[in-house]
Amino acid sequence: MAVSRCQRLSGALVQELLATVDTVLFDCDGVIWRGDQAIPGAPEVINALKSHDKRVFFVTNNSTKTRAMYAEKLGRLGFQASEEEVFGTAYCSAVYLKRTAKLDGKVYLIGGNALSQELQRVGIQHVGSGPDPVTGSQNDWANVPLDPDVKAVLVGFDEHFSYMKLARALRYLDDPRCLFIGTNTDTRLPLEGGRAVPGTGCLVRAVETVAHRKAQIIGKPNHFMFDCLASEYGIQPSRTLMVGDRLDTDILLGSNCGLKTLLTLTGVSQLEEALEHLESGSEARLCLVPDYYVDTIGDLLPALQG
Amino acid sequence: MAVSRCQRLSGALVQELLATVDTVLFDCDGVIWRGDQAIPGAPEVINALKSHDKRVFFVTNNSTKTRAMYAEKLGRLGFQASEEEVFGTAYCSAVYLKRTAKLDGKVYLIGGNALSQELQRVGIQHVGSGPDPVTGSQNDWANVPLDPDVKAVLVGFDEHFSYMKLARALRYLDDPRCLFIGTNTDTRLPLEGGRAVPGTGCLVRAVETVAHRKAQIIGKPNHFMFDCLASEYGIQPSRTLMVGDRLDTDILLGSNCGLKTLLTLTGVSQLEEALEHLESGSEARLCLVPDYYVDTIGDLLPALQG
Repeated sequence: MAVSRCQRLSGALVQELLATVDTVLFDCDGVIWRGDQAIPGAPEVINALKSHDKRVFFVTNNSTKTRAMYAEKLGRLGFQASEEEVFGTAYCSAVYLKRTAKLDGKVYLIGGNALSQELQRVGIQHVGSGPDPVTGSQNDWANVPLDPDVKAVLVGFDEHFSYMKLARALRYLDDPRCLFIGTNTDTRLPLEGGRAVPGTGCLVRAVETVAHRKAQIIGKPNHFMFDCLASEYGIQPSRTLMVGDRLDTDILLGSNCGLKTLLTLTGVSQLEEALEHLESGSEARLCLVPDYYVDTIGDLLPALQG
Repeated sequence: MAVSRCQRLSGALVQELLATVDTVLFDCDGVIWRGDQAIPGAPEVINALKSHDKRVFFVTNNSTKTRAMYAEKLGRLGFQASEEEVFGTAYCSAVYLKRTAKLDGKVYLIGGNALSQELQRVGIQHVGSGPDPVTGSQNDWANVPLDPDVKAVLVGFDEHFSYMKLARALRYLDDPRCLFIGTNTDTRLPLEGGRAVPGTGCLVRAVETVAHRKAQIIGKPNHFMFDCLASEYGIQPSRTLMVGDRLDTDILLGSNCGLKTLLTLTGVSQLEEALEHLESGSEARLCLVPDYYVDTIGDLLPALQG
């Protein structure tokens, strides 16, 4: 099939595309659900893909849930899914520190329960989670006690982010041997109704600024999450479809890893943005253009049921 | 006198330079004091400059003190100084909002007592100062109550910086008419003994990331602080000397405003950095090269007493 750019995926083209694909990767927020509501038709689409022998995985930058929490939510919203199909940044960050970085020490964690649990599951100890309000004065902040076993700072979503956490991160990261990992750089976490809350990217940028260093980012569009999945399951990139709602994370990940890409318009990015990238003629911006788009993944259902 | 680049200022050259100068601007931290200790000889140098009829001003990015607090500290450490000679970012931010932006409304302040007091002094009301710990869940953070009179967000040094403050700033700054001001972008605040605490730049970057906007920065190297001072006192840039310890704020401000510049080596920047900029031959980097340097401003004392 000839490569097309930003083509509406409907009718016979759906079956034509699926015949060239073994594996489908779905982003979650804005793609298969919004907040606590499944996108209409999404469970049926994913369950039908599986009954057509497609392998399905859920690939999300959100670090606030463990694999088990995602599997529970997926099941509750009507998706057939198991823990092993979920690749979130909480899980992948723990895998990165354990397998890739071969961390021998503790983590100073700016992050919540899910990150905490995934680190524990791979046997990595951590300090730092929970509230850390400021006390004392400048000299106290500059001399906060450190845990000498900490060999990495991991920054994920943390609603208890505070000035004291920045002060501790500064001191740990002043040692150039201390690893510096960020789960993802999404600047906002969109909620239902158009509202949003600050995303992990804000916290990562603050820590990068104080550390005078860049974090190694685990999440999309960096290829680590796909590598992690591909190495466990023997995925062939050219026969894999990435479905997402963000050009700068999902679609760019697909381009970076040689996957086919499908933009769904139920989340962050608009069709107009994709078309602007396409029409710019800039090679760098073409990486942000999906092969296909749909208004909602529910639009795939007729072809799968036909 | 011919312009020289990065020349040691000593001996007869001190008097030669001072003959061409009416006004001397001093940065504070790392220049005239470190923490709560005056740099040896600094009070005598500044007092002698005044007795030689030079006008002296104190120009600092630090937003944690009001003009009155600075005057008190200066006096306590032996400097002859009055409030009117102090141009800190707490005062200048209030002046900017009042005179330049002609703000008609309240400020959402991420900042401490000094900013709070300087805003009050110019008659600007504000909300937001003090601790703001997280409560509730995502939907609560996305729907935090807003003060409808807030027309500007001001970010300065705030040891109570928290996730909730980011969430509120996001909502205020989603209105494109809401002004967005940062006091300064220093990434760290150096203390005595080589230690440091996170600087306002970390907080400004976090808010810029969530807001998808850049803040208007009041502090050095932006020229607003010098404009503020020059308009009040009728300063002639070419007959003004800026003395500082940072190439990227103090010396760059001097270059940006057409001042003579003197680097003192008792603070952040090293002579080697200045020489690397000089030898790079890059036009952009030449702005970071001081005209002169001294090991400490105490070195100027013999020439002033001679």
